[in-house]
Amino acid sequence: MHEHPLPPADLTRARQGATVDAASIRSYLYGHASWEQHERVVRVMSKDPAFDNSKRAFMSRTELYARALAMSNHIYELQDQLGWSTEETRRAIDLLDESTPFVLHETAFEPVLRSQASEPLLSKYGALVANRGIVGCYLQTELGHGSNVAALETTATFLPATQEFEIHSPTLTSTKWWIGALGKTATHGVVQAQLILPDGKNAGPHLFFVQLRSLEDHVPMSGIVIGDIGPKAMGGTAPLDNGYARFDHVRIPHENMLSRFAQVTPDGRYVKPPHAKISYGGMLYIRSGMVTTAGRALAEAATISLRYATVRRQGQRNADGSEQQVIAYPSTYYRLVPILARAYVFIKLGRQLRDTFSETAERLASGDTSSLGEMHATTSGLKVLATTTSIRDVEVARRAMGGHGYSTFAGLGRLYARILPSATYEGDNFVLDQQVVRAAIKAYRALPHTGAQFSPSTRYLRLLLSPQPAPPALFSAPDDNPEQIVLLLEHRAARVVQAHMQTADEGALDAGAAQRLSSAVTDAFVARQVGDMILGLQASSLSAIDRAVIRQLYILYLLTTMEAGLIDFLSLGILPVPAAGGPDPVRALRGMISDLCLKLLPEAIGLSDAFGFTDWELDSALGVYDGRVYEALWERAKDSPLNEHEVTPEYERHIKPVLERGRRRAFAGKAKL
Amino acid sequence: MHEHPLPPADLTRARQGATVDAASIRSYLYGHASWEQHERVVRVMSKDPAFDNSKRAFMSRTELYARALAMSNHIYELQDQLGWSTEETRRAIDLLDESTPFVLHETAFEPVLRSQASEPLLSKYGALVANRGIVGCYLQTELGHGSNVAALETTATFLPATQEFEIHSPTLTSTKWWIGALGKTATHGVVQAQLILPDGKNAGPHLFFVQLRSLEDHVPMSGIVIGDIGPKAMGGTAPLDNGYARFDHVRIPHENMLSRFAQVTPDGRYVKPPHAKISYGGMLYIRSGMVTTAGRALAEAATISLRYATVRRQGQRNADGSEQQVIAYPSTYYRLVPILARAYVFIKLGRQLRDTFSETAERLASGDTSSLGEMHATTSGLKVLATTTSIRDVEVARRAMGGHGYSTFAGLGRLYARILPSATYEGDNFVLDQQVVRAAIKAYRALPHTGAQFSPSTRYLRLLLSPQPAPPALFSAPDDNPEQIVLLLEHRAARVVQAHMQTADEGALDAGAAQRLSSAVTDAFVARQVGDMILGLQASSLSAIDRAVIRQLYILYLLTTMEAGLIDFLSLGILPVPAAGGPDPVRALRGMISDLCLKLLPEAIGLSDAFGFTDWELDSALGVYDGRVYEALWERAKDSPLNEHEVTPEYERHIKPVLERGRRRAFAGKAKL
Repeated sequence: MHEHPLPPADLTRARQGATVDAASIRSYLYGHASWEQHERVVRVMSKDPAFDNSKRAFMSRTELYARALAMSNHIYELQDQLGWSTEETRRAIDLLDESTPFVLHETAFEPVLRSQASEPLLSKYGALVANRGIVGCYLQTELGHGSNVAALETTATFLPATQEFEIHSPTLTSTKWWIGALGKTATHGVVQAQLILPDGKNAGPHLFFVQLRSLEDHVPMSGIVIGDIGPKAMGGTAPLDNGYARFDHVRIPHENMLSRFAQVTPDGRYVKPPHAKISYGGMLYIRSGMVTTAGRALAEAATISLRYATVRRQGQRNADGSEQQVIAYPSTYYRLVPILARAYVFIKLGRQLRDTFSETAERLASGDTSSLGEMHATTSGLKVLATTTSIRDVEVARRAMGGHGYSTFAGLGRLYARILPSATYEGDNFVLDQQVVRAAIKAYRALPHTGAQFSPSTRYLRLLLSPQPAPPALFSAPDDNPEQIVLLLEHRAARVVQAHMQTADEGALDAGAAQRLSSAVTDAFVARQVGDMILGLQASSLSAIDRAVIRQLYILYLLTTMEAGLIDFLSLGILPVPAAGGPDPVRALRGMISDLCLKLLPEAIGLSDAFGFTDWELDSALGVYDGRVYEALWERAKDSPLNEHEVTPEYERHIKPVLERGRRRAFAGKAKL
Repeated sequence: MHEHPLPPADLTRARQGATVDAASIRSYLYGHASWEQHERVVRVMSKDPAFDNSKRAFMSRTELYARALAMSNHIYELQDQLGWSTEETRRAIDLLDESTPFVLHETAFEPVLRSQASEPLLSKYGALVANRGIVGCYLQTELGHGSNVAALETTATFLPATQEFEIHSPTLTSTKWWIGALGKTATHGVVQAQLILPDGKNAGPHLFFVQLRSLEDHVPMSGIVIGDIGPKAMGGTAPLDNGYARFDHVRIPHENMLSRFAQVTPDGRYVKPPHAKISYGGMLYIRSGMVTTAGRALAEAATISLRYATVRRQGQRNADGSEQQVIAYPSTYYRLVPILARAYVFIKLGRQLRDTFSETAERLASGDTSSLGEMHATTSGLKVLATTTSIRDVEVARRAMGGHGYSTFAGLGRLYARILPSATYEGDNFVLDQQVVRAAIKAYRALPHTGAQFSPSTRYLRLLLSPQPAPPALFSAPDDNPEQIVLLLEHRAARVVQAHMQTADEGALDAGAAQRLSSAVTDAFVARQVGDMILGLQASSLSAIDRAVIRQLYILYLLTTMEAGLIDFLSLGILPVPAAGGPDPVRALRGMISDLCLKLLPEAIGLSDAFGFTDWELDSALGVYDGRVYEALWERAKDSPLNEHEVTPEYERHIKPVLERGRRRAFAGKAKL
């Protein structure tokens, strides 16, 4: 049987047709030095059989857990062998593209200790932590308690007589639950618990450093019951041992309270932290990283689906008798090209946010909490936007691939299941919406007093100062003036907040209202950032051609953001609705988006190649670089465990009995067709 | 440790507070006799250890496949032992709540044979098929070809000399792919292939009955290469052996062509079918069943999430110091109560559709194809609506459960992964949208000629006949006049189609346009059905209280359908937008929805109890009837395979080396915190 000749030709043609320069764009996206480091690590890993992905689709959770540990252990070995820096090692761990137990050590345990442990505790454990001589986890949520930290039930009672804290789980619902790496891996943990003072007073939730397992034999410490909480939905984060722990009056020394800010004196007096939210640093760090994670997920989804849609042919016949490429259908490119645009925006935004966070963290370390409020408002909204968008778009991309998108080998199902919990962890998105709204309301109320003082997250409110400017009209040629779209998105935020404040029963923030306000405000913030990115293109080292194409991507981002907010634009009269029979503003906007997608289409494969994913990283039969998708599906199917036997062992057990019973019934004249 | 006392009390209180009568509503929903039959089968199965679900969350795909066959085999055994009817047996299979291999025999293989095989073929194989003396599958899609049947590559060449057809796969891309039950189970199949006549002419795709495996030892027949295509995204339909097959010049007898309609004479002449679409019956049957499937999925999602949201407490403190029930938050009930409403509507609609299909099928059997076009247009739109809605809502419900919703034990991840492919199989939703649009355009063009002749699917077009009536205003008390909302939804469909036809380049149906038209048209159709359901309540045997509550559910369905179409209502001027600063129509509508949700809230648990799910059917730790969700999570976690060893065997292999290396590094002063 001969192979289908068309697919690889299609992809080659698309590559040849693209005018953008993948290498320069890559440098623009990631930074040159950073990309080189990334490539170096990928080169090592993709050739090392320890990181072979070809069997993981068939593994049980127990096997995936073991594999994740083996790969992590091997990376740390390589760190020593190759002299990798901490950053290179972290890249390697990221490249595993799995939720591995030791990740929690680096992303939760270590940062919390670094920022909140006292000097004596750090001098005792710091080096062990930094080198993984002990490995940790962060125990916050409980079986009965999630994002409302104030309601946690676990207690840490100070006992002045012995200078100890006693950690205790008083109820079933106080069992620590969902804690990554707790189930089977971590030796130590930072426990969030209500601090009970000798006089019985509850000083609220504080953090305590607790040894969980023996360093001799890994057996749980006396008084602590630990285990794995079981598999996660859709096979997501399978390699991670999310765990539970119950504490039965477990004693820890006084110094194990993380007491850089709040403290308990040896005689049991409580010393308040200088700023109520000074311990938010860790959370901000994790949330700000989620924009980068979302950018990467969007980039993977765009790369895989655009490649497949380029080689897949279906439906209408072309003049040469071949079927049309799927990417040529409006229903496909209208879905996929905007995902590409969002990937670019989120990758750039994630880098900016990392820099902003570093500044905030430096200030925090020196006790300056002035930028904390702004950072909190911004990261809350961005966390919601980044996670909601990436989860949605990965599924849009998967579905755009039709039937084959439902194969595990397509790769996007695995990605979806892994990023899915980001909507509910690190602050449930619905809860965070309310935080964004609260910040917006506060800024709105301060409006008469602020004069022209606006932070980046509240800048849109300037449009409410009198004389209030009218929103600009939507140009039919948005290329000419992206600032108009940024302004429109800022006007939307301002009007949504204003309308809400003028008519709402202020106490009652119903669901729709919170989401509506939150996304309008966050969209305005991001739109302004994107406006700045467009301006920044001038100063970049990109060629004029590359600049023009990326400019179009950014404008596409702005236009599709407008589309998602259409209800606001229409209902608040920002986009005027003509009298019945007049032109439909919705179709006008969608027409612009469609035109822009079509313009970008010849560059789509080039722009996704620019992300620089290797086949090893994507691990997708539909996203292979050479476009031989059918060969890839065929090769992978052969390894399916069900194909181990030509005749399944279940034939004798369960199929033959059905057939034999069926023949008996047929001869006895039972059922008829 | 004592248990948390609140949850069960919350659910008991909710049940006591509900005024609806679950038993009468159940009869109204399902029909009394049908429900009794269902209960009888559930009673048998839920007590039989063969159908125990407690270990499935931990099983590999190979184990799940074996389990599905074992359960099916046992059901057929019970059929003989207990004298179950075909209907009862099918119910039992449905209740497995899994995609089992033998289901394809009943839903695809058997109906196609029944409706399209010739009498001689049926007399030879009918009894065997009906009693499963042979088990079958339906081979349509190919590795390189999906919904465009015309482009399939598999050939069936008629050889007059031997009076045989030769089935052949000429290319890799012609390999049959995704075929349920083909991988390891089926003995026979119906193959869709291009019929090649002796003169070399291609008569297009036709169906052929082909033996795939030996009835002696289950080995694939000579010339056929068969296997499993591998796992599916997110672990979906794991127990099903979707398979591939390549045919190498495989001969079958002349009579094996399904020739009730189209035929090839012994001398090789082609006899056309009486109606080009007469073979669509099977597809219509499958699509019309998808509304019922969606209704059940929505009912499960509503039951589980409403129960959990009733016992889960979080956030704001009540006067007694307890946290607020999650269901009491607007962001929760605004999401969940409408799912309940959609479950009711889809369950009712599914029953109606089944009846309509039976009529159409009877007519088809007698050669009357007059109702086929209407049935095709209706089921295409409903298939898109039902699958898109159920997939979305199951995920909305899962996410509304916060962190615990991501546990496999919550149950909704499993449900989501299973129904997910319904968006792309049996007609990709984006392709079907275009069918709906084509039917709408055809009806619109016929408008000047039809006078007052409208079918249910085009009835909304009457609003375009002059004198064109103005759309009604949206009442602030929708309870009083649901007909107004139905009319508004019909006006929207009429205006969307009209606006499209007045301004569109007719050839260019871009993505947004097709989806927009399709959902406007289908929403109008369903709204009219719901209007009829509301009228029908008067004649039902329900009490006045039950009638009033279900009436509210139906109105909630209509209002939330309006909400989903807000962009159309606003941009086409059907909901007038007041001058800047005036009341926001979006908030007005959402306020009505919110009020209605609040009114229905005290009945929500009663209304979901009315679906009648047992704990065995739901298989969800968060949806347990008694509300002891934390105990249920705790019990299930204990069985996690990772908990088999107190100290994981991976400790010695991969954790200890990391710790030892870390200690060495720490003492050597490598990294610092």
